[in-house]
Amino acid sequence: MEISNNAPIGVFDSGIGGLTVAREIMRNLPSEKIVYFGDTARVPYGGKSRQTVEKYARQIVRFLKTQGIKAIVIACNTATAFAIDAVREEAGLPVIGVIDPGAQVACKETENGRVGVIATRATISSGAYTDAIHAIRPDVRVIQKACPLLVPLVEEGLLHDPVTDEIIMRYLDEVLENGVDTLILGCTHYPLLRSAIRKLIGDDIRLVNPAYETARSLSGLLSREGLACTEPRNPDEPSPYRFFVSDQAEKFAEFANSILPIDVSAARLIQIEDY
Amino acid sequence: MEISNNAPIGVFDSGIGGLTVAREIMRNLPSEKIVYFGDTARVPYGGKSRQTVEKYARQIVRFLKTQGIKAIVIACNTATAFAIDAVREEAGLPVIGVIDPGAQVACKETENGRVGVIATRATISSGAYTDAIHAIRPDVRVIQKACPLLVPLVEEGLLHDPVTDEIIMRYLDEVLENGVDTLILGCTHYPLLRSAIRKLIGDDIRLVNPAYETARSLSGLLSREGLACTEPRNPDEPSPYRFFVSDQAEKFAEFANSILPIDVSAARLIQIEDY
Repeated sequence: MEISNNAPIGVFDSGIGGLTVAREIMRNLPSEKIVYFGDTARVPYGGKSRQTVEKYARQIVRFLKTQGIKAIVIACNTATAFAIDAVREEAGLPVIGVIDPGAQVACKETENGRVGVIATRATISSGAYTDAIHAIRPDVRVIQKACPLLVPLVEEGLLHDPVTDEIIMRYLDEVLENGVDTLILGCTHYPLLRSAIRKLIGDDIRLVNPAYETARSLSGLLSREGLACTEPRNPDEPSPYRFFVSDQAEKFAEFANSILPIDVSAARLIQIEDY
Repeated sequence: MEISNNAPIGVFDSGIGGLTVAREIMRNLPSEKIVYFGDTARVPYGGKSRQTVEKYARQIVRFLKTQGIKAIVIACNTATAFAIDAVREEAGLPVIGVIDPGAQVACKETENGRVGVIATRATISSGAYTDAIHAIRPDVRVIQKACPLLVPLVEEGLLHDPVTDEIIMRYLDEVLENGVDTLILGCTHYPLLRSAIRKLIGDDIRLVNPAYETARSLSGLLSREGLACTEPRNPDEPSPYRFFVSDQAEKFAEFANSILPIDVSAARLIQIEDY
């Protein structure tokens, strides 16, 4: 079956964090349609094993393929770290994750060759950022730190709070002591803490937001594959963005509304285990 | 099929929290055997919908029944709040949850008729503690508070930490302002914060630990049903305690070892979605 240029892009995450990636795609590729899936029943992925994350990612790919997508964005660092090969195999479509785009920019930006990575425990233990960085620049020293409490703090909305600041500083102390000049926000929730982190670490360290870099890489990928959207947006057609979740559809739609530049009227609940 | 008195008790939780209930059963009913299941792939339940928790609980009951159990303890407040009826229907065996035993003791202990309940967002929104208390003593005023950050803080091991103290005080401020003389620890993780909470609220407020009360109620239930174990423990037989999880078996066994009065050599991984 031929893939249509005007088909939507499938974007998925363990929950709401991947909306920061969807947001960058909306801003930077405004003519592209999106089908987003958030695995809100089984969130978070950051403490799960490779085997389990792979199984969940394959189910999600099978669901997204029922929506006639042309490409897949894994908008979740843990799923990228553990399951990008499984997703490629299952999809048979162009696939992009958030790790390579972030690693590429960090390699370009660092001057002193010391790059920090903060992420979930699963992403850190996978070593995926270190591997991606060393594949480009083996000379870069990577200082990693798992930050398991940041996701719950973001999900509770404590984006500007002394407790969050204290936890961020505990996690970053060791990274900063190693003199990094570039810090990768290696979890899709963390861009929501960008201003808190910036305030704590000062202006001298470059912050890499893989969500933004992924949207830019996606643009390049679609061009290379001849898959960029060619159809002008029809203002009469229904929304080009569709949202699906595995639980708590209303709560998801509320959060999506608060961070996306569009109105999300509803998310549809699906039984992801059936795929 | 007749149920054997010497069959094990099935105990389940979304993850590790229910081990505080298993621990009380081991201490208070030392001749009983236990099959424990922790749903570590899909933890936590505290933010999920009733529908999803019911589905997961039914799968777990179907698995536990393959292990020849004689009764079920729902060692999870959220699963008790949302799914005790579904579990009873699916099991066809005596079932006990953690909410009624906690509510009963709180009703007996309170002198001023003001009881606080702290729990996950799902347990609080279900109103299950309020309903259980009002079924016994409609005059009791129940002051509830959802404490979503306490589970991640416990899972990170920050049991004695200024950040945890600060978060506990934020959650408890409102409860204490209402003059409660009894506080139910309505999540199986919270007994691990008992000494931190005691330090912060002083000695005048009674703390109700539903894990302990559940073990006592279980003892009564087994006697009434004629199901108490009659077989003396055979020191040559393999461990009377078996542990199953849906992910991260090693990490689970490590945690279980740290809080149980026995050696947990291993937990077995099962595919819970297949049940």
